[in-house]
Amino acid sequence: MSALITILNGPNLNLLGQREPEKYGATTLADIEAACFAQAQSQGHQIEFLQSNYEGQIIDWIHAAREKSQGIVINPAAFTHTSVAILDALYTFDGPVLEVHITNVHQREEFRHHSFVSKRATGVIAGFGASGYRLAVQHMAELLD
Amino acid sequence: MSALITILNGPNLNLLGQREPEKYGATTLADIEAACFAQAQSQGHQIEFLQSNYEGQIIDWIHAAREKSQGIVINPAAFTHTSVAILDALYTFDGPVLEVHITNVHQREEFRHHSFVSKRATGVIAGFGASGYRLAVQHMAELLD
Amino acid sequence: MSALITILNGPNLNLLGQREPEKYGATTLADIEAACFAQAQSQGHQIEFLQSNYEGQIIDWIHAAREKSQGIVINPAAFTHTSVAILDALYTFDGPVLEVHITNVHQREEFRHHSFVSKRATGVIAGFGASGYRLAVQHMAELLD
Amino acid sequence: MSALITILNGPNLNLLGQREPEKYGATTLADIEAACFAQAQSQGHQIEFLQSNYEGQIIDWIHAAREKSQGIVINPAAFTHTSVAILDALYTFDGPVLEVHITNVHQREEFRHHSFVSKRATGVIAGFGASGYRLAVQHMAELLD
Amino acid sequence: MSALITILNGPNLNLLGQREPEKYGATTLADIEAACFAQAQSQGHQIEFLQSNYEGQIIDWIHAAREKSQGIVINPAAFTHTSVAILDALYTFDGPVLEVHITNVHQREEFRHHSFVSKRATGVIAGFGASGYRLAVQHMAELLD
Amino acid sequence: MSALITILNGPNLNLLGQREPEKYGATTLADIEAACFAQAQSQGHQIEFLQSNYEGQIIDWIHAAREKSQGIVINPAAFTHTSVAILDALYTFDGPVLEVHITNVHQREEFRHHSFVSKRATGVIAGFGASGYRLAVQHMAELLD
Amino acid sequence: MSALITILNGPNLNLLGQREPEKYGATTLADIEAACFAQAQSQGHQIEFLQSNYEGQIIDWIHAAREKSQGIVINPAAFTHTSVAILDALYTFDGPVLEVHITNVHQREEFRHHSFVSKRATGVIAGFGASGYRLAVQHMAELLD
Amino acid sequence: MSALITILNGPNLNLLGQREPEKYGATTLADIEAACFAQAQSQGHQIEFLQSNYEGQIIDWIHAAREKSQGIVINPAAFTHTSVAILDALYTFDGPVLEVHITNVHQREEFRHHSFVSKRATGVIAGFGASGYRLAVQHMAELLD
Amino acid sequence: MSALITILNGPNLNLLGQREPEKYGATTLADIEAACFAQAQSQGHQIEFLQSNYEGQIIDWIHAAREKSQGIVINPAAFTHTSVAILDALYTFDGPVLEVHITNVHQREEFRHHSFVSKRATGVIAGFGASGYRLAVQHMAELLD
Amino acid sequence: MSALITILNGPNLNLLGQREPEKYGATTLADIEAACFAQAQSQGHQIEFLQSNYEGQIIDWIHAAREKSQGIVINPAAFTHTSVAILDALYTFDGPVLEVHITNVHQREEFRHHSFVSKRATGVIAGFGASGYRLAVQHMAELLD
Amino acid sequence: MSALITILNGPNLNLLGQREPEKYGATTLADIEAACFAQAQSQGHQIEFLQSNYEGQIIDWIHAAREKSQGIVINPAAFTHTSVAILDALYTFDGPVLEVHITNVHQREEFRHHSFVSKRATGVIAGFGASGYRLAVQHMAELLD
Amino acid sequence: MSALITILNGPNLNLLGQREPEKYGATTLADIEAACFAQAQSQGHQIEFLQSNYEGQIIDWIHAAREKSQGIVINPAAFTHTSVAILDALYTFDGPVLEVHITNVHQREEFRHHSFVSKRATGVIAGFGASGYRLAVQHMAELLD
Repeated sequence: MSALITILNGPNLNLLGQREPEKYGATTLADIEAACFAQAQSQGHQIEFLQSNYEGQIIDWIHAAREKSQGIVINPAAFTHTSVAILDALYTFDGPVLEVHITNVHQREEFRHHSFVSKRATGVIAGFGASGYRLAVQHMAELLD
Repeated sequence: MSALITILNGPNLNLLGQREPEKYGATTLADIEAACFAQAQSQGHQIEFLQSNYEGQIIDWIHAAREKSQGIVINPAAFTHTSVAILDALYTFDGPVLEVHITNVHQREEFRHHSFVSKRATGVIAGFGASGYRLAVQHMAELLD
Repeated sequence: MSALITILNGPNLNLLGQREPEKYGATTLADIEAACFAQAQSQGHQIEFLQSNYEGQIIDWIHAAREKSQGIVINPAAFTHTSVAILDALYTFDGPVLEVHITNVHQREEFRHHSFVSKRATGVIAGFGASGYRLAVQHMAELLD
Repeated sequence: MSALITILNGPNLNLLGQREPEKYGATTLADIEAACFAQAQSQGHQIEFLQSNYEGQIIDWIHAAREKSQGIVINPAAFTHTSVAILDALYTFDGPVLEVHITNVHQREEFRHHSFVSKRATGVIAGFGASGYRLAVQHMAELLD
Repeated sequence: MSALITILNGPNLNLLGQREPEKYGATTLADIEAACFAQAQSQGHQIEFLQSNYEGQIIDWIHAAREKSQGIVINPAAFTHTSVAILDALYTFDGPVLEVHITNVHQREEFRHHSFVSKRATGVIAGFGASGYRLAVQHMAELLD
Repeated sequence: MSALITILNGPNLNLLGQREPEKYGATTLADIEAACFAQAQSQGHQIEFLQSNYEGQIIDWIHAAREKSQGIVINPAAFTHTSVAILDALYTFDGPVLEVHITNVHQREEFRHHSFVSKRATGVIAGFGASGYRLAVQHMAELLD
Repeated sequence: MSALITILNGPNLNLLGQREPEKYGATTLADIEAACFAQAQSQGHQIEFLQSNYEGQIIDWIHAAREKSQGIVINPAAFTHTSVAILDALYTFDGPVLEVHITNVHQREEFRHHSFVSKRATGVIAGFGASGYRLAVQHMAELLD
Repeated sequence: MSALITILNGPNLNLLGQREPEKYGATTLADIEAACFAQAQSQGHQIEFLQSNYEGQIIDWIHAAREKSQGIVINPAAFTHTSVAILDALYTFDGPVLEVHITNVHQREEFRHHSFVSKRATGVIAGFGASGYRLAVQHMAELLD
Repeated sequence: MSALITILNGPNLNLLGQREPEKYGATTLADIEAACFAQAQSQGHQIEFLQSNYEGQIIDWIHAAREKSQGIVINPAAFTHTSVAILDALYTFDGPVLEVHITNVHQREEFRHHSFVSKRATGVIAGFGASGYRLAVQHMAELLD
Repeated sequence: MSALITILNGPNLNLLGQREPEKYGATTLADIEAACFAQAQSQGHQIEFLQSNYEGQIIDWIHAAREKSQGIVINPAAFTHTSVAILDALYTFDGPVLEVHITNVHQREEFRHHSFVSKRATGVIAGFGASGYRLAVQHMAELLD
Repeated sequence: MSALITILNGPNLNLLGQREPEKYGATTLADIEAACFAQAQSQGHQIEFLQSNYEGQIIDWIHAAREKSQGIVINPAAFTHTSVAILDALYTFDGPVLEVHITNVHQREEFRHHSFVSKRATGVIAGFGASGYRLAVQHMAELLD
Repeated sequence: MSALITILNGPNLNLLGQREPEKYGATTLADIEAACFAQAQSQGHQIEFLQSNYEGQIIDWIHAAREKSQGIVINPAAFTHTSVAILDALYTFDGPVLEVHITNVHQREEFRHHSFVSKRATGVIAGFGASGYRLAVQHMAELLD
């Protein structure tokens, strides 16, 4: 049965491909959305793909996902390290949650090594570049089958 | 003289009664609002009862309370542990502030043991369940008399 | 059915109302006992009200409460921060335990921020002044009904 | 050539001059805007002057500055100590960034000693009162010449 | 030559067998005293077996042991982690000291991992259940022979 | 061109499927090897698949990989948290390194949150179950193309 | 006018002169009492000289001193490092408090470097041997004149 | 029914009786093996007694014990403090595990106070000298009966 | 009225412009003195400009400033992080103190993030390059008017 | 036999009586010198009394004391907390060393709680005001007799 | 008399000269062995020169050295920071032990600053490049003479 | 070509051979100067050999070395652990810097384990006794050739 996968992106990811390309690559968020769409479709599922710089907006979207989505893929970006509120929102969601980071956060500054979201995530993928999203969607689809 | 008590609720509390009932109980936020209204009315006072997932919205409401309210009861939820901005907003308010937590946060994860809001709160009540709100309103009413 | 609530007070509380009134107020422990008695009686319950400067005495009283009391309200005062033995005694008691502090301990010295007793307490109330005892008795009575 | 300097103000600064005047002085944010405007104009530059209690709004404004501004002066207020997202937004901006604090934050509470924004800032000025803004604009204008 | 072994028990151990049997077992302190007596007698020695919830009482007993006992077996219970005074009392005793814990304290809460008494103890035995006492008496008897 | 991917497994992984199946699942290491082989073959590459309980053996295999392999996929198991020597060995290898953990290590004991291997790894995948290996091989194959 | 100086001694000090003479010397507590008596008398003051192994007893004595004594000289021994309750008791006393340690505690174990009592003490003297008591009485007498 | 008890010894224990006899005594590992054998035999059980300086070897032996042994007695020596891999191996074993240290490790260097093995051990015995092994075998035999 | 501003420079600043120009720029201390002189003169004030590698010398100069100067501008260089004695000297000075750092010390090594001098400074300016001195003199002049 | 006692004073003490009299009192260093001289003379000994703001000067004086003095009384002031070099100098001196602080440093800022000098001092006296010097000289004289 | 010096090399050193030459130089381990041999021979002594990636192997070699060698020169490489077992093995060796590191480990990652081996080493030499081995052999030879 | 090597000695080293000979040996600083002179001369180089108890003096000498010396050998003694100013001075020197400690500082008190100077030093040698100087000069000479 076709499932809906909500894919959430945290602050500054709207600039992906435009900022610090030597660290994040030239791929844009639209490119990633297209790759996720194709991957989900190839496995018979659907996605919604959202980005916000507001923590409150992301919490609202997680609440909305409780009604309509079967799984969440989230790249919380900077909120990874600071948002207990997003963690608590994810605790209200029953399906699997996969956390994605484009870079290997463990090789960056110390304060990026800790993730609140990981306390709730089913799995975490970091440092696989933009492909991390596609692999997370692929795995989510298998989990939901 | 009748006073206005502002009651503020932080992120994810809109889902109260729907999420993790074994931890938070089946009472909804509407139930709590009704109990607070009845308690305040019985002591001759009024309440306004608000909830938001946005830190900025809660700060705006605290600023508004400076003009019209005599006391604030706040359950900052996840913002308890992370928001210096809400703490600073509360420092701009002159009346008493009572902090409420439904569960005994000291028995949960380590990162929930620290509260920025407590640095400004007149009193703190935790682990009294939904009744904590009603007792806080009762005490606030006595303080304001 | 009428229940017995044991109310325990730790070291130095015998001087309440006589020492540092600007911090603790002018209410004496006898005043608090009277207020607790009235509150319990109005809800059809009884209290016993005890104070000691000896940790061992408080442990003995908790053991005694196992036989005759349905709930414990405790203001452990300085033992809050140092007594693992009182914590262990409370673990041997099956009913609800409510922890009371007259001041908001989170606004005092760092070493007063940690409580061993909170690990066992059903709820904690701090900074509500002497009223905290009465509210705790009120809530305890409701829990025991 | 005339440059545009974006001046950003974080949470609670809208109350400047109205709250805790013994700590922050009686100058309002409008006074500061006027002083910054005059200083910039005297050096042949322009400013835009913005304030928000929403972290997300400040991030959006930093993104907008990438297209139209040559430098950013920012008083992140409480977000100084908690927002990795604003730090990441500033990393996407290529021009100089000057961080301003009205008070000497190193003399306040321990948790105000750490700044995420300083990791990106070209310079920091603290404890110069409202004059800190004007001096920052003056230095920014020299840097942009 | 027959020696006297003083066996000391700290706070709450008087309830052994009545409290949390899933953690401490159903054996009572009287059962343990009987087992220790039998063990000592089989090796030709005598015991005295004492329990108190008062730290001061335990210190007095250690002082008394200086005159009449050749070895001390002690289960300091909660005082293990907090009493420098008992540690100092044990430093005034010249014979061997064996420390017993019924459970493996290293698998319980973090604050139970540290022992002041261990700084003076000849040996420590933990997690051997009530048998730990008997094995300690057995070893003490061998040491005293 | 066909590449060789070395897949290394650390201590205790030989028991996979036999130990704590509720935590690690019923899949055996042989099952995982088969899945990796199939995945690599479908992308035109080859694998070697090795396991050892000896840190020294794993270092030797990494040295050997310098001559014959283009990429390393490694599940260091318990050595993740303690082996600087494996980290140093990986620093001598020029190709991509992907680190796999079957469970989400961030939800287990504190001492499992730190990884020496992550300091060198190109990417990390955790909590994707046995599928994590297959996805790592898939991504490695794409990297090597 | 003749004043009364209360001199309090904490746990294990009753054994002074009998235990570890290489660390504490051969002077007994009776010797020290005699020296304090002589010193006070020479300055026209009186002393009471007390020792207990019970924390609760020492608190009771401090409470009693509120009515009859003008100054307290205290060697809290092991309670120095662990008793918040004695600290709180001393806060209820209005006169000067001098803290005495026979040895230089800063050269002993790490856990003996911290003193709760010093937060309230007017002065501290350590490592002056038994003479520390006499000098404290001498200074107390001057303070009370 | 006769059970097999596996007794494991970590690095450097092969030198027992030859190195630092003032700290570890003159007893050799062969003496200990003989005492363990006699003790087990007297209770109707069998032992195997092994020593290695290789962490991998000890893990292999624990794996082997899963098939043939009913209990493990282990002196992990230096691996106590550093080996997560041995801890994980012990988690794969279902029977009781008793941890033995010849000296009281709590009186030695700070880094010897922490034990990974204790997280899994049923019981711990330290500072009982070579007798600790015999007492552990005695207790293991009783547990297995 | 014309005031005297004492400008103090700590160790190694005599080499400014000669060492690590990529970090500190090519400006020499003489250049900075000239800029400060001009700035002060334009506002009708005078300066004295001093440098020493001796902590004791800087303390002596601060003592001297108590008699003749109205304000101190200080770049303590390496003494910023280590000298309690300079902090104490500044506490003896009644006028405003402005602390200057040429670079943004918050972006350098961890041990350069802490400043003893900031505990006393009226304001701090860092990362404004050599201009920081001139802006500090400008602000000092305004404060003294 | 008459001995020479060297009395050393650290940085800023030359201003005693002129700075922060509410904290340090109105007594000057010359007053203290006179009191020490009188005290020593009354016991038949001599003093030399020195002050410097230079750490190196104090070290030189300690070296000189090795040849001519029998005891050192030192108030290291700010160097207490930072100077390993003065500690090392004191280790080269064979006689008794008494450390004096005018205020109770344990009630001031955290960084003033640690003393390097205490690791070598025979005794420490703090919070006895200027009288601390005199009592230290009195005790030193008795030690030297 | 000619002595035997055992020279031990830890993990990954077999790749010396082949890996990261910009950090470790182009010298191979064979080159170093030759230099050590020459140096020892010139002073009339002999060496054995060994390398292993197995911690257990290095421990075995240290045990063997107890019988035949007079001194140990050891470059423990990554085991420096993690191996208590090698430290314990070195404690069983009676002769001098010199620890060598090719690079100045204090300038590398934080986790390389701590050395277990240094607790036993007679001396440490770091950052002298491959020459450090030769100088250590030279000094060892002098010590053994 | 003949080079000049500056050899600097920190506080208290002027007493070498006179103080604590069991820790530092009987060799005097003059002996060491002679050995260094001989070593340098044998390799065709010259030395200057200096000692001071003043941190400022050592900084001045390092500045002077920038003009005339090709390498610095420094035993900073107690300044090793506290002087950021000497570290900064060494950063202004371009040639190699070798740090010497007579004892193995890693086996002494905890606060002697950290070295600011090591952050700049090319190499470090500790615990080689007075020979450490000679070996450092030998290695410096080779580096300068």
